[in-house]
Amino acid sequence: MGDNTLGTKFRITSFGESHGKVVGVVIDGTPAGLKIDLDYIQRELNTRKPGQSSFTTARKEQDRVEALSGIFNDRTTGAPICLIIKNQDVDSSNYESSKNLLRPSHADYVSLQKFGDFADFRGSGRFSGRITAGFVMAGAIAKQLLSKVNISILAYTKSVGNVEDNKDHSINDLEPLLQRRKKSPVGALDIEISKKMEKLIEITKKANDSVGGTIRCIINKLPPGIGGPIFNSLESNISKGVFSIPAVKGIEFGAGFRASRMKGSEHNDPWTIKNGEIKATKNDSGGIIGGISTGMPIVFTVAVKPTPSIGKIQKTVNIKTMEEDDIKIEGRHDPCIVPRAIVVVESIAAIVILDFLLIEGKIPSVLKD
Amino acid sequence: MGDNTLGTKFRITSFGESHGKVVGVVIDGTPAGLKIDLDYIQRELNTRKPGQSSFTTARKEQDRVEALSGIFNDRTTGAPICLIIKNQDVDSSNYESSKNLLRPSHADYVSLQKFGDFADFRGSGRFSGRITAGFVMAGAIAKQLLSKVNISILAYTKSVGNVEDNKDHSINDLEPLLQRRKKSPVGALDIEISKKMEKLIEITKKANDSVGGTIRCIINKLPPGIGGPIFNSLESNISKGVFSIPAVKGIEFGAGFRASRMKGSEHNDPWTIKNGEIKATKNDSGGIIGGISTGMPIVFTVAVKPTPSIGKIQKTVNIKTMEEDDIKIEGRHDPCIVPRAIVVVESIAAIVILDFLLIEGKIPSVLKD
Amino acid sequence: MGDNTLGTKFRITSFGESHGKVVGVVIDGTPAGLKIDLDYIQRELNTRKPGQSSFTTARKEQDRVEALSGIFNDRTTGAPICLIIKNQDVDSSNYESSKNLLRPSHADYVSLQKFGDFADFRGSGRFSGRITAGFVMAGAIAKQLLSKVNISILAYTKSVGNVEDNKDHSINDLEPLLQRRKKSPVGALDIEISKKMEKLIEITKKANDSVGGTIRCIINKLPPGIGGPIFNSLESNISKGVFSIPAVKGIEFGAGFRASRMKGSEHNDPWTIKNGEIKATKNDSGGIIGGISTGMPIVFTVAVKPTPSIGKIQKTVNIKTMEEDDIKIEGRHDPCIVPRAIVVVESIAAIVILDFLLIEGKIPSVLKD
Amino acid sequence: MGDNTLGTKFRITSFGESHGKVVGVVIDGTPAGLKIDLDYIQRELNTRKPGQSSFTTARKEQDRVEALSGIFNDRTTGAPICLIIKNQDVDSSNYESSKNLLRPSHADYVSLQKFGDFADFRGSGRFSGRITAGFVMAGAIAKQLLSKVNISILAYTKSVGNVEDNKDHSINDLEPLLQRRKKSPVGALDIEISKKMEKLIEITKKANDSVGGTIRCIINKLPPGIGGPIFNSLESNISKGVFSIPAVKGIEFGAGFRASRMKGSEHNDPWTIKNGEIKATKNDSGGIIGGISTGMPIVFTVAVKPTPSIGKIQKTVNIKTMEEDDIKIEGRHDPCIVPRAIVVVESIAAIVILDFLLIEGKIPSVLKD
Repeated sequence: MGDNTLGTKFRITSFGESHGKVVGVVIDGTPAGLKIDLDYIQRELNTRKPGQSSFTTARKEQDRVEALSGIFNDRTTGAPICLIIKNQDVDSSNYESSKNLLRPSHADYVSLQKFGDFADFRGSGRFSGRITAGFVMAGAIAKQLLSKVNISILAYTKSVGNVEDNKDHSINDLEPLLQRRKKSPVGALDIEISKKMEKLIEITKKANDSVGGTIRCIINKLPPGIGGPIFNSLESNISKGVFSIPAVKGIEFGAGFRASRMKGSEHNDPWTIKNGEIKATKNDSGGIIGGISTGMPIVFTVAVKPTPSIGKIQKTVNIKTMEEDDIKIEGRHDPCIVPRAIVVVESIAAIVILDFLLIEGKIPSVLKD
Repeated sequence: MGDNTLGTKFRITSFGESHGKVVGVVIDGTPAGLKIDLDYIQRELNTRKPGQSSFTTARKEQDRVEALSGIFNDRTTGAPICLIIKNQDVDSSNYESSKNLLRPSHADYVSLQKFGDFADFRGSGRFSGRITAGFVMAGAIAKQLLSKVNISILAYTKSVGNVEDNKDHSINDLEPLLQRRKKSPVGALDIEISKKMEKLIEITKKANDSVGGTIRCIINKLPPGIGGPIFNSLESNISKGVFSIPAVKGIEFGAGFRASRMKGSEHNDPWTIKNGEIKATKNDSGGIIGGISTGMPIVFTVAVKPTPSIGKIQKTVNIKTMEEDDIKIEGRHDPCIVPRAIVVVESIAAIVILDFLLIEGKIPSVLKD
Repeated sequence: MGDNTLGTKFRITSFGESHGKVVGVVIDGTPAGLKIDLDYIQRELNTRKPGQSSFTTARKEQDRVEALSGIFNDRTTGAPICLIIKNQDVDSSNYESSKNLLRPSHADYVSLQKFGDFADFRGSGRFSGRITAGFVMAGAIAKQLLSKVNISILAYTKSVGNVEDNKDHSINDLEPLLQRRKKSPVGALDIEISKKMEKLIEITKKANDSVGGTIRCIINKLPPGIGGPIFNSLESNISKGVFSIPAVKGIEFGAGFRASRMKGSEHNDPWTIKNGEIKATKNDSGGIIGGISTGMPIVFTVAVKPTPSIGKIQKTVNIKTMEEDDIKIEGRHDPCIVPRAIVVVESIAAIVILDFLLIEGKIPSVLKD
Repeated sequence: MGDNTLGTKFRITSFGESHGKVVGVVIDGTPAGLKIDLDYIQRELNTRKPGQSSFTTARKEQDRVEALSGIFNDRTTGAPICLIIKNQDVDSSNYESSKNLLRPSHADYVSLQKFGDFADFRGSGRFSGRITAGFVMAGAIAKQLLSKVNISILAYTKSVGNVEDNKDHSINDLEPLLQRRKKSPVGALDIEISKKMEKLIEITKKANDSVGGTIRCIINKLPPGIGGPIFNSLESNISKGVFSIPAVKGIEFGAGFRASRMKGSEHNDPWTIKNGEIKATKNDSGGIIGGISTGMPIVFTVAVKPTPSIGKIQKTVNIKTMEEDDIKIEGRHDPCIVPRAIVVVESIAAIVILDFLLIEGKIPSVLKD
């Protein structure tokens, strides 16, 4: 429970609203002695910051990370770390005017059902994608710690609409992939595919519409034996985290839904010996069998729905008059949320994996440089 | 944490092994005063019992549910309920002989990594699908309670291999679907598709192979407003539970991965008024927006991988000699696990949904008939 | 787990350090629609604020409560509430100079053992009583909500050193007690006893020493049936919370340790009927039997050790030289922490009781005025 | 939450009723590879078994421990361990006859308030001290594991009524204390005091009355640095566990309530160096400062109320007629529950301490002999 807390030993608690004072996170359970690079956290934040390219919302935010606690002499102390960003470019006027019109596939209706009319509706409040800035700040700390044990994580845009990258990019060294991703404004790994995606997003934007996509995430060098059968499976905990990201509607590990169409003789990953170590010959299991890491890269793919905020006129209901009405959503919106969600998926992956490693005693509670 | 506990207020704890004395479950948090129909639990168990048809393993088990605690005068007392089934048809000889050969895509290797060689390897021990009998016993109690508040749950075989049922069966009354499913030995809703699935499974079985599939689950009459944004979303908690089922490798809600290829104008579910109530005109959201129920049916689909145990000869490694070797898995296995997994998916859905309703105070802690 | 999170449905997460930027708390699970009186929170904070009287440390802090999230139009929204106070009168010089001398019965040594030398040692960092300001802010919100269901909480100084108030003050209406407590600078209920306590504290202060005491807490109008046997007992959860307050070393419910010297025929609380309702004739059980509330006032007493910071010269060890040495603790300290801890005990009681009521569905998740 | 689950990484779930089929426990989180001595568990159970001496109830139970899961080849597997004892000497007739008379200071009334009239009232059901047999079975496993890291735990009867042992028995080697305790039928360490306690219990029994007492528990060789400030303090978690034991009404650590009457200069434990290690010169802190172990023995004392079941006639209320009435409790009861509760206190201490050690990564998840 706790709508706003994730994790057991590495535990994050999210707070803040889209148009409130801040978006923040409390990060509990970070071992003492970790050198914190606030610039790195800032760079991570910047990749999900609005207003970065024509593909994203025009909202302009500094999103400057500020540490309120838990860091002393540039290192973690073992105390809870509170990080915030302040909200600045807050223009709630568009939200006020259409307050009574339920935006289709937005949380307006369910929010009323759950919170009555008390919720801070401005900018979608707690339902805003902006809340994930907290995940990113926590994820950046998790990543800094994971890198100490050589674990790296990379996510990328696998598809936008029907434009899809079908290559298997799960390789031993993620650094070259990272370099390639940097060149793509939409977070793709293949420059040709990136261009097609950009084109599709532009067309969609002009049509006052939005489009969905998929994100693939690779976790490298997770040692074998992490996770557990049934309720503590890697899949259970990764999926719990990933579905916390607004707009995510599906997740699959390894071959995933494709596996449902395969024979066992196709899908099974035979074991072999490479350099004296046991490895699978392929990785349709996505690095997880029986809920536990095999030592192969963890690979999962996330389905992201199209942004529900579109400029097109839509049918809906006026909650005050209880009559049907048209709605035209004004304001600044992302025609495709996928590029900004990449770092969020990575962050959740980092948070969940670090929690497993801390629980299983694979990382000490005090770090020595 | 707790590899073997799921849930907060309605909380199940699983124990037992495939070839140990029992498979069992402790169910904590059931309100007092619920009339328990052990025959219903038994009927639920029977639908996942092995040896029911030629499509399932030949292992013969009575799987007779036995209540050790928590029920008095045929009603729940508010105390934890312990239910067990005894293991009887235990033949561990096949497992002993091939103990050192790592079965491909089985948990043998990860089990060694996690538990050393101390795990009860017989019949896959804790990694066996048999453990899910505990989920079914708990799910049967959850369903009995949910039916008191008019919530019903139905899952069915949506696809086996490439044979797929693409119809939308999410209707208001699940009873007719249940009747149709009873007629299909593979748990399909459409008799023609069922026959094709049966045929495919038979062919697969003869080829000493196995095949995957998908299961769709519908939860009806869940009131709007259940769940929460981010970490306590319905999707987060349902997926956490569903990935606890061995062989599940993917889940999607509503349009799911299909949504990733859609435009916002296609995917959005416009609101309308039906009989004075606000409803969505369609349900691509799968009954969940912002992590919270909309009042429409909850719809999710689960990808099940092909059973890793196949009779075909496979490449693998002998863990003792650290040499590559061939393995031919003997024993009794399911060519397609999907039909037996249907009730398990329903059970997990019931357990998770009941937990939400209890936490949110929608069901009293003492029932009055 | 989670060193810094308490509670299940009403859940608080503490952050901040004594000499860091802020001391804060995130409060999750408050129902939507509660009118928040920040002035009330401020008044509660003021009662534990340093520098209030000659009996407390001379540290001067505004301790001005600031809301970062979760409140909109002066009401709770159902979103997590983040409250902070800023640290201002921070003088860490005394701490720097004696950094290597382990203060007796202070957390210096255990902090080194747990966090290495990375902890923020200034002003005792996370071990400071100042952290409890976060409990008080959360408790003030809990109290505002509890008052909606007529539950009131009052704690008072029962003893300072050997000066003890042995009267039973657990009466139906706590308001008169509150008025009497206001007149006592040490939080006692009896003016004569208060004067003796004040005298004792003054003498102790002049002797560069400190003194312990006890706090009694009364929770009124908790309905019967709250709590549970064994692990979820009221005593279990109240004690877990109360021992989170620095300097608390004991707790007893009802007759407590006195009960251990009693016969059953003395201790048992016979049942009777008052105004048509079942009541106990006395309350040696402290309002709790079998872990569950009886409907009588909940009464518990807390033992508070003398402040470990004293001006007297003490023997200790220099952690750098590993030699024995003398220490004279400079800085501003409380000769008796009991008066400032009263509101903290009340706050923890309020937080724990509210969590029970929310879990057990006794308070709706949306409030209507 | 979860009324019946305690712990995070080492987690026990209790089930069963006094007069139901079994009393049992599921123990989750035990590392794989621990050699389990069922005879040791049995011996532990025997020390709380009824009918052991004239000081305890005449109920005769074999209390034979039976393992249903989690143990293979005499070792733990890493899977959850289910242990049960069967109830045999069940005579519910006494309970039936007086069913409507609320026994004073018994859970009858609160049980009705919480569970309606659905609870299994026979033999006090879930409120019976018999439930603690499950704690003892789990504690015996915890102790076997703790002994691997040299941690030992001993509790003893510190007082019965006004007969009290005021000596400080917290020494380095608990074995001699254990030998002395074995000679006392009431679990005292001093033979003269034991005789006085025996005498007092006999007199009390003849008077159809009961008497309370205190139990002191010593945990030896816990390394420094275990626990945490505020919510995860050793005191918080030990007390939460200890108050789960029926009849416990108080707990204090180290000097406890005595500390409340002390000056800081008396109470503070100055640091010194012994054999090159930092130690406290005395241990009024009870081995815990700032919620964290100091490396000194953990010492806590528990107040146990007199058994509420007494043969004397008492005043009470008939719940059916809602009239006042007399009650004379028949059946078999303990005149003093303290001797049988000793092993329960030790068990809870072992369970809580092991949980801390596992969470903090001090014990590996797979044991090597």
